[in-house]
Amino acid sequence: MSLSPELSARLKRNADGLIAAVVVDHATSDVLMMAWMNDDALEATLTTRRGTYWSRSRQELWVKGETSGHVQHVREVRIDCDGDTVLLRVDQTGPACHTGTRTCFDTDERLLLAEEGAR
Amino acid sequence: MSLSPELSARLKRNADGLIAAVVVDHATSDVLMMAWMNDDALEATLTTRRGTYWSRSRQELWVKGETSGHVQHVREVRIDCDGDTVLLRVDQTGPACHTGTRTCFDTDERLLLAEEGAR
Repeated sequence: MSLSPELSARLKRNADGLIAAVVVDHATSDVLMMAWMNDDALEATLTTRRGTYWSRSRQELWVKGETSGHVQHVREVRIDCDGDTVLLRVDQTGPACHTGTRTCFDTDERLLLAEEGAR
Repeated sequence: MSLSPELSARLKRNADGLIAAVVVDHATSDVLMMAWMNDDALEATLTTRRGTYWSRSRQELWVKGETSGHVQHVREVRIDCDGDTVLLRVDQTGPACHTGTRTCFDTDERLLLAEEGAR
């Protein structure tokens, strides 16, 4: 399988051939993680509804949760105005972050700027 | 002003010296847009609470809404587990997208995969 020529033509890939993928929890609307996709990862995500990405460190296709069990069932995929980012709404099994937190943005030390008036 | 050495050391910049910025509407939790930041953009965002990015096309610092008036007041900034993405919660004035839509992911033609059972 490969992407349709129509969709392929809409993608604005970076120098490494990748687009960004922002992943949101369908139930809570919390942003869970940011990852990267090449054409094959996007095609796999669209056809299997399993969150599938490109691992820049391992340089391979990466089905999220394949080893951890923390899979993502993809409810919806949208592309942005200039074609370099997709937005996924998913049902996340277990924590989304490889550190074990629910999202990749949790924990106090990941807070850089708190709301005014908040402690 | 420049970033604190401690924060600077946590950033995992790409080959162009940039990190990704995911921007969420504080009121609705909708993802509004994806943009890029260099160190100066992050520092400006943290100190002024105005959403400030790096324009890759114009190769310059870009205070969102400076010309359109569609500014962002930044409520909260978080960084992710591996330091290459920040998550902003903002109060968005006007549409976030330069095409005039509320978010960069709105409109029917930006929907790539609809929810099962949906039209």
